[in-house]
Amino acid sequence: MYGIDSSPIRKAFELARTIENPINLSIGQPHFPCPPNIIDAMAEAAREGKTAYTLTGGIPELKEAMARKFLSENGIKYATPDRILVTSGISSALFLLFNALVNPDDECLVISPYFLMYPSMLKFYGAKVLTVKESFGTDDLNSFRKKKIKLIIFSNPSNPTGKVLSKEQLTALANLAEETGAYLISDEIYELFDYDKKFYSIGKDYDKTITLTGFSKTYNMTGLRLATILAPEEVIKALTTLQQYTVVCAPSVTQWAGIEALKTDMSSYIQDYREKRDFVYESLKDFYPLEKSGGAFYYFLKVPIQDEEFTKLAITSKKLILVPGFIFCENKDHVRLSFATEWDNLKRGMTALQELSKELAN
Amino acid sequence: MYGIDSSPIRKAFELARTIENPINLSIGQPHFPCPPNIIDAMAEAAREGKTAYTLTGGIPELKEAMARKFLSENGIKYATPDRILVTSGISSALFLLFNALVNPDDECLVISPYFLMYPSMLKFYGAKVLTVKESFGTDDLNSFRKKKIKLIIFSNPSNPTGKVLSKEQLTALANLAEETGAYLISDEIYELFDYDKKFYSIGKDYDKTITLTGFSKTYNMTGLRLATILAPEEVIKALTTLQQYTVVCAPSVTQWAGIEALKTDMSSYIQDYREKRDFVYESLKDFYPLEKSGGAFYYFLKVPIQDEEFTKLAITSKKLILVPGFIFCENKDHVRLSFATEWDNLKRGMTALQELSKELAN
Repeated sequence: MYGIDSSPIRKAFELARTIENPINLSIGQPHFPCPPNIIDAMAEAAREGKTAYTLTGGIPELKEAMARKFLSENGIKYATPDRILVTSGISSALFLLFNALVNPDDECLVISPYFLMYPSMLKFYGAKVLTVKESFGTDDLNSFRKKKIKLIIFSNPSNPTGKVLSKEQLTALANLAEETGAYLISDEIYELFDYDKKFYSIGKDYDKTITLTGFSKTYNMTGLRLATILAPEEVIKALTTLQQYTVVCAPSVTQWAGIEALKTDMSSYIQDYREKRDFVYESLKDFYPLEKSGGAFYYFLKVPIQDEEFTKLAITSKKLILVPGFIFCENKDHVRLSFATEWDNLKRGMTALQELSKELAN
Repeated sequence: MYGIDSSPIRKAFELARTIENPINLSIGQPHFPCPPNIIDAMAEAAREGKTAYTLTGGIPELKEAMARKFLSENGIKYATPDRILVTSGISSALFLLFNALVNPDDECLVISPYFLMYPSMLKFYGAKVLTVKESFGTDDLNSFRKKKIKLIIFSNPSNPTGKVLSKEQLTALANLAEETGAYLISDEIYELFDYDKKFYSIGKDYDKTITLTGFSKTYNMTGLRLATILAPEEVIKALTTLQQYTVVCAPSVTQWAGIEALKTDMSSYIQDYREKRDFVYESLKDFYPLEKSGGAFYYFLKVPIQDEEFTKLAITSKKLILVPGFIFCENKDHVRLSFATEWDNLKRGMTALQELSKELAN
């Protein structure tokens, strides 16, 4: 346990509190408030006395609503309630999965750059972490085919890059999982933040996929701790037993809020972020090597000096808070920029980044 | 993980759903609703937008309120916010503690009868579980003094017996912890259910105590997942890091509800349970060997046949749902009875138990 370091993201968060009027582009959650109908549903559930333990696996009403969502929005036909487990957020889901599935020395494949918790937690369970770049083609997976891989995990769309994996890439990963007997874990917490309608749930084609869906990012419910796992029934059974001996169940009122969340139209929120995604691209494309982000609310920006030097310079000279890239990949030449913020803040941030680029070029 | 069996308590809960008009005395949570001011505080927190991640260790306001509570109600003077961690319920607290502290083959001492999760979880982490009866005297601990004990854990008041440990017993446990270097874990989730004012927090005298305080039982917030750990600062730091990689933080709105809960006068609820405690004693003392329960909302009833036979007979012939005692101790001659229920239900249950006693005597 002591091998897990405190997250630099949260350190950035702490730092932001100490600087006056900072430009904070480090935050990994939406800037808009949780929609009021969801709040109302939670308050209503509490008033109706829904404050007791729920079934360990989650309330049937939410599991049924999720099954309908998987069918209508993700095209996944086999998503019955028996294949769904409600958890206390994606982190809790990852903990259950890794605790249940991973043994020491297991080889696990992670798409890089990666959500920092994947390799940290996998190493905590003694796994060996293999990586492949997110730009991989089918042939790039050949070297893994003869290995005994325990699981393959990725976030799609990606935190920290905003990359949306192509159907070809996802199919190649599913084939690799089938060949090697690996569990395929598709973390789809950013699925609604899909600006060019290119997101694809590989669970649609590969029914052994373990699909993670969170409510935190989509509805700004990060503090309410709610996510679901769709997986083969024997996996769900094992995870449910483990959940009973850890958090027991996801928060009851939050589960009721989740049902309302699924009915909420988020398109205007997504459109706002689409415009911000475009604005960042237009603002920075002449200053940094840049591909347009396809999803989530991040850019993974290549910077001309070492990442930690860059983030330090950004804070001290521009009050601009970013996250150094080394926590998301093996290299030290990127920073993560979140555009989940107000326009004013984003504009100040783009000006700061333009100035930094010019100053570093001199 | 597969060694952890599904809890018979929850099986009883499932069974209760299938019987028409059962007498359910198996429930491990209060029968009264969560007080409305607590609900209101939670709804208010949500409306104010407090739906985002909190600090991993919990909101400072709740930690400060808990520090004041430990001082004024438990007489614990060293309870500063730095020594407090907010968790997603007691189960989550136990998970954090056992995961961080217990290594395979560690010897851990549990007071018997015990909360079933203690030995289950300890065994899951590979620990060897030693037990001592809750009626122990100081001398009964002598055989443990030469051992290398990793931790000592008990619930006080006790689930499943309602036993409130004496100050002498607690002092003996603290002395044993000090001598053997064991962590002393006092699970005080039932502290308010203390009918004869005999409950004592050993943390008051022994500052290395790890004190667990839950909100679930006191305020009927079992589904809201909230508890706190008071422990030496280095323990809190280690647990906080681990929490960051599991549930991240306790539910945000629940933490705000917790502050309001601490201000809530529960004395009328406690008085109701005190009367029920007495009523059960008067109803059953001539039918079963019985000591008056001192706390929590349980009796651990010695029955004239094997526990599982008795619970089966109670269901089939009286529609009475109880929990077999074998899950709480090494013996098979007790059942757990919860008096956290409506008067009508409790009266029906006492009649059923009187009848069962008579029928079995014939």
